Amino acid sequence: MAKLKVGVLGATGMVGQQYIRLLEGHPWFEVSFVAASERSAGKKYLDSVAGRWQMKSDVPKSVGDLMVEDASKVDRAVGKCDMVFSAMEMEKEALRALEDSYAAHDIPVFSNSSAHRWTEDVPMLIPEINPQHLDIIPIQKKRHGWKKGFVVVKPNCSLQSYLTPVYALMKEGFEVRKMILSTMQAVSGAGYPGVASLDIVDNIIPYIGGEEEKSEKEPLKILGRIENGKFVNNDSMKISAHCNRVPVVDGHTACVSLEFGIRKPALEEILRIWKNFRAVPQELELPSAPKQPIIYNPENNRPQPRKDRDNDKAMAVTVGRLRQCNVFDVRFVGLSHNTIRGAAGGGILNAELAFKKNLL
Amino acid sequence: MAKLKVGVLGATGMVGQQYIRLLEGHPWFEVSFVAASERSAGKKYLDSVAGRWQMKSDVPKSVGDLMVEDASKVDRAVGKCDMVFSAMEMEKEALRALEDSYAAHDIPVFSNSSAHRWTEDVPMLIPEINPQHLDIIPIQKKRHGWKKGFVVVKPNCSLQSYLTPVYALMKEGFEVRKMILSTMQAVSGAGYPGVASLDIVDNIIPYIGGEEEKSEKEPLKILGRIENGKFVNNDSMKISAHCNRVPVVDGHTACVSLEFGIRKPALEEILRIWKNFRAVPQELELPSAPKQPIIYNPENNRPQPRKDRDNDKAMAVTVGRLRQCNVFDVRFVGLSHNTIRGAAGGGILNAELAFKKNLL
Amino acid sequence: MAKLKVGVLGATGMVGQQYIRLLEGHPWFEVSFVAASERSAGKKYLDSVAGRWQMKSDVPKSVGDLMVEDASKVDRAVGKCDMVFSAMEMEKEALRALEDSYAAHDIPVFSNSSAHRWTEDVPMLIPEINPQHLDIIPIQKKRHGWKKGFVVVKPNCSLQSYLTPVYALMKEGFEVRKMILSTMQAVSGAGYPGVASLDIVDNIIPYIGGEEEKSEKEPLKILGRIENGKFVNNDSMKISAHCNRVPVVDGHTACVSLEFGIRKPALEEILRIWKNFRAVPQELELPSAPKQPIIYNPENNRPQPRKDRDNDKAMAVTVGRLRQCNVFDVRFVGLSHNTIRGAAGGGILNAELAFKKNLL
Amino acid sequence: MAKLKVGVLGATGMVGQQYIRLLEGHPWFEVSFVAASERSAGKKYLDSVAGRWQMKSDVPKSVGDLMVEDASKVDRAVGKCDMVFSAMEMEKEALRALEDSYAAHDIPVFSNSSAHRWTEDVPMLIPEINPQHLDIIPIQKKRHGWKKGFVVVKPNCSLQSYLTPVYALMKEGFEVRKMILSTMQAVSGAGYPGVASLDIVDNIIPYIGGEEEKSEKEPLKILGRIENGKFVNNDSMKISAHCNRVPVVDGHTACVSLEFGIRKPALEEILRIWKNFRAVPQELELPSAPKQPIIYNPENNRPQPRKDRDNDKAMAVTVGRLRQCNVFDVRFVGLSHNTIRGAAGGGILNAELAFKKNLL
Repeated sequence: MAKLKVGVLGATGMVGQQYIRLLEGHPWFEVSFVAASERSAGKKYLDSVAGRWQMKSDVPKSVGDLMVEDASKVDRAVGKCDMVFSAMEMEKEALRALEDSYAAHDIPVFSNSSAHRWTEDVPMLIPEINPQHLDIIPIQKKRHGWKKGFVVVKPNCSLQSYLTPVYALMKEGFEVRKMILSTMQAVSGAGYPGVASLDIVDNIIPYIGGEEEKSEKEPLKILGRIENGKFVNNDSMKISAHCNRVPVVDGHTACVSLEFGIRKPALEEILRIWKNFRAVPQELELPSAPKQPIIYNPENNRPQPRKDRDNDKAMAVTVGRLRQCNVFDVRFVGLSHNTIRGAAGGGILNAELAFKKNLL
Repeated sequence: MAKLKVGVLGATGMVGQQYIRLLEGHPWFEVSFVAASERSAGKKYLDSVAGRWQMKSDVPKSVGDLMVEDASKVDRAVGKCDMVFSAMEMEKEALRALEDSYAAHDIPVFSNSSAHRWTEDVPMLIPEINPQHLDIIPIQKKRHGWKKGFVVVKPNCSLQSYLTPVYALMKEGFEVRKMILSTMQAVSGAGYPGVASLDIVDNIIPYIGGEEEKSEKEPLKILGRIENGKFVNNDSMKISAHCNRVPVVDGHTACVSLEFGIRKPALEEILRIWKNFRAVPQELELPSAPKQPIIYNPENNRPQPRKDRDNDKAMAVTVGRLRQCNVFDVRFVGLSHNTIRGAAGGGILNAELAFKKNLL
Repeated sequence: MAKLKVGVLGATGMVGQQYIRLLEGHPWFEVSFVAASERSAGKKYLDSVAGRWQMKSDVPKSVGDLMVEDASKVDRAVGKCDMVFSAMEMEKEALRALEDSYAAHDIPVFSNSSAHRWTEDVPMLIPEINPQHLDIIPIQKKRHGWKKGFVVVKPNCSLQSYLTPVYALMKEGFEVRKMILSTMQAVSGAGYPGVASLDIVDNIIPYIGGEEEKSEKEPLKILGRIENGKFVNNDSMKISAHCNRVPVVDGHTACVSLEFGIRKPALEEILRIWKNFRAVPQELELPSAPKQPIIYNPENNRPQPRKDRDNDKAMAVTVGRLRQCNVFDVRFVGLSHNTIRGAAGGGILNAELAFKKNLL
Repeated sequence: MAKLKVGVLGATGMVGQQYIRLLEGHPWFEVSFVAASERSAGKKYLDSVAGRWQMKSDVPKSVGDLMVEDASKVDRAVGKCDMVFSAMEMEKEALRALEDSYAAHDIPVFSNSSAHRWTEDVPMLIPEINPQHLDIIPIQKKRHGWKKGFVVVKPNCSLQSYLTPVYALMKEGFEVRKMILSTMQAVSGAGYPGVASLDIVDNIIPYIGGEEEKSEKEPLKILGRIENGKFVNNDSMKISAHCNRVPVVDGHTACVSLEFGIRKPALEEILRIWKNFRAVPQELELPSAPKQPIIYNPENNRPQPRKDRDNDKAMAVTVGRLRQCNVFDVRFVGLSHNTIRGAAGGGILNAELAFKKNLL
């Protein structure tokens, strides 16, 4: 099988670099097009990231030689790629228009950005949770009159540390009514240069702009349903999130307290559910899917970001410290790798799902 | 006025060093006796802390020349000090007996340890909150037949970051029914050598042994009352605490969500209450009391440990980010200096209160 | 005595903030004028640093209310201040012209910047080392036709960790011929936002642009002499510097190996020289001068930045680990506070010296 | 080919864990025996490292089930392994005796410890530098009357960051006469728990006990020769080392200044030599050998520990910043992974070399 040709928009930024790295040697996809803001355009990719390349492995040779295109010139992508990953950092409205334009040029878009997260017929996907939300794509295409193009987005990185474990319980019939959580998020989540070292050495910052709102609202769409061609939020759950920045390179950690509805699982039942949880990405054996999406570490001081973020290609969620909550029903700690599971890896998994669903 | 002579038990450890440092130049107290485990006894204090002195300023000259005594030989203290601060690290039961023994030798004990925190007639004091708990001292003395000696303890350091702001609201008639909180605690809280650097560089640890239980139970005694010569816990509040260790030198931060009873204060009312909050240590102008016990920092990313821990001689609690909670009523972030307000400084404030109450 | 009115150029940046903080309560100087780039001009100082104030103590009230001026409009300063501290970050040539312009308006300039460091009649001052370099001021004034104004600069911050201890030996007749050193420099040296946290958490950067050249050349001017109205470099010393950035907030550390000329001091002699070293700032009892300019810490693992940077108001150099060098003659470790001794504190000490020398 | 059975002494410590991890899936060797101090003996390996396992990947299943033996009972190893890796932490003399005892029981020992580093007929091996030092093994065996057993050691971890690049130049005929270097060493080098977090957060420690002496002396043996059945040091080189501990998890960095003898290579020549350097491990294609032993990174701020320590399975030395030295001839920065190249990986490479040389 010839590999699908993929483009990366915003290829010079940190998430873009992570896409380039993760797609190296991908069995289905091949990077054939890299684009960024006008400023970077016209240079070889290798030169454009000189002094800014944050990955441990080198720039893949085949990509290093590509010429960086101006992402705003959409016609430059036509014929060069079968789909694009969007990791552009732009003003929201302009980015929505740009992503639409790629779709209109018959190029499906898998976006990391928040631009389209609240567009009524754009699915916000975590393949282990709401793969059925891809069912809206025909409606989306029809509304716009797009033939092959469409837009799929992924949610904010911090959700990934706890939403899959919570969903796993809901799937087994345990309604979650209230959730209060505190995150301790890695500096890589702010991109590069991002957080100033003077703000984080011997310090923590108890605030990340916009992050609490996303953590509280996005799960409601992900756990929602399609009605009359639009997404309708789950309306039975309330979430309160405190988001903190900590001096950790990669890996977002969350301390979560949960209140269930009438049916309340015992702790052993929760452990059993998490252990046995498998979902569509595992059934379809998507290349980037973790074998065990939820890994429970029974040691009393885990998960820890440096020790657990890379579990199962950095695509698994690691949980630990499940115990009774004094105020709600149960509490636990969740952790995932924010720039892999929570960003580029998650975007690739979305595309793999779409591919297997014959949308590409 | 001649200064009171004070002893420090466990003087060579980190909290003990903090006592030595904070008592330098104290207007009422003067260190005249230092004791530690048998191992350190018999050396000059200066020599006993060589290579282990963690304070920024030098060992005070007058203390450096004192001979370190074996803390278990209580009679060595008799005549040498009018009271002691206990910062010993020992097995609990043995420590209880040791502290009792000092009291029995007519030497009041102000303890940092958890040994006597749940003794039914030992007050666990935060002078801004429950100064009236000192009223139990005559009962305690009578039960033991002690003439001048008694035992007062302070609670766990992590409470200090949020309990005073919460109490300030309760004092104004706003009952707090539920509290879910997450702490991010400094490494100095674990003493020296304490947390291994391999566990905390580029990492956080979502567990501190025993800390969650203390955070959940101790406030109930502090907010409780004396009945029939014993302390009775506050029974209307439920607390759930997630305690985390983070790579910060000093300063414990807490993210707190509160649910009130029927009366619910507006945000502006809370700000007003915190701003105006003054308590007994301020009225009595105790030397170590912060002028403003609760400082609200209105910037959206504060308090931060490195920037706010030293506020008002490191004795104030700094709060910030007061806002509505999606699940409970309100939430905020609190911070205090764990080895000063939360340890030695808090112990000294307890002694200052007792002094002004003519208990010394 | 009425205090001298002083202005701070670049008052909103990190070094500028440090000036504001250190000048609070200064016995001779009083901040009466704050200026910055055009962008910040027109706001109250308090507002201009909102969210960017990096000091632990609050913005001094009297300064917070000052209106920030556009530093390029020099006539705005006339009559408002008797001298200025320059901490502007600008293109070098433009900054030279700007500083000259203040001098031409009868306002002496004490600069932190590197703009004028190599101007032939501008003294680069460390008051403990080359106070006599102020003798060039009349020549400088005459050349420009300035009546009261002049320009004095301070050297790069990293020098301060080792040059005074080295000079102390030279002063006693021990010529230093070769010096190889490695620095480990704090992130505050790069200003704010400065070093990205992603570059420094669990990492070090073995490069600081321009720093090695400064470390190798500036000492030669400082240790040089005035000849025919110009500075002539010391030409008997060779320096090689490796400069590294490390995850430390404040405090530059240097590992130094020295080769002497024919006369070689014994280790005990060096210790004695350092212990007894006093210089003009100490003799004149300048308010910001450390009482003991060189503090030797005999413990085998000192100096350390967090523990020693604040010694003597953060104005002393702390040294340690003096021992034989296998290749040269001796080696040691030096440390000083880069944003106080190495920046604002050093600038203030320069002005204090000039004041006592009747240049203001 | 059946795999050789190997034992790991000190298997529960950090270096021992690294051996276990690196040997998983090794093409020639298979862990069949794990031993530690008496305290750990008698438990399953998995249980013995519970809560102390520092590796990212899990304990390999086959090893987890092994019973931990008491390393001092040498006869327990007989028949169970064909050789052992020694990573014991013990008093030196006792460890020498223990390692000898294994050799006397026909079990070759590849040691990480410093116990035998200065034994006159024990080779201290870096396979890229002195593979010919294995020629002494027959002499060593004969002296002791050992039939199959012998002892090989590896040098201190910090050498690895710079000695191979220096040797590569010497091999091409450029004698190195003087070397002054400063290291910035990772906390993992001190084992677990090792460095206290209070000593390293926002701090560096300019001292590591014994490390400077090792850095100055061990290279002389490695670069020495065999004469009359004993090792004779290289006596034409002088080294001065400043060793510092920095808040980095893994990866030792060194800033090196070199003075050559009469022949002095140009910078381009050095780059060419490093680029083309290949040695015995590469020729023999040893499984753990890096393909390119010396990697030059031309960016001006590299190598950096977090970004370069894992180069080529963490077995390569990465160098950068080659430039003229103001005092000596040239200077550069070198970096290698201290617990892999500098410890377990280096030990395994030693064993691979011995295996190919038919010593096993």
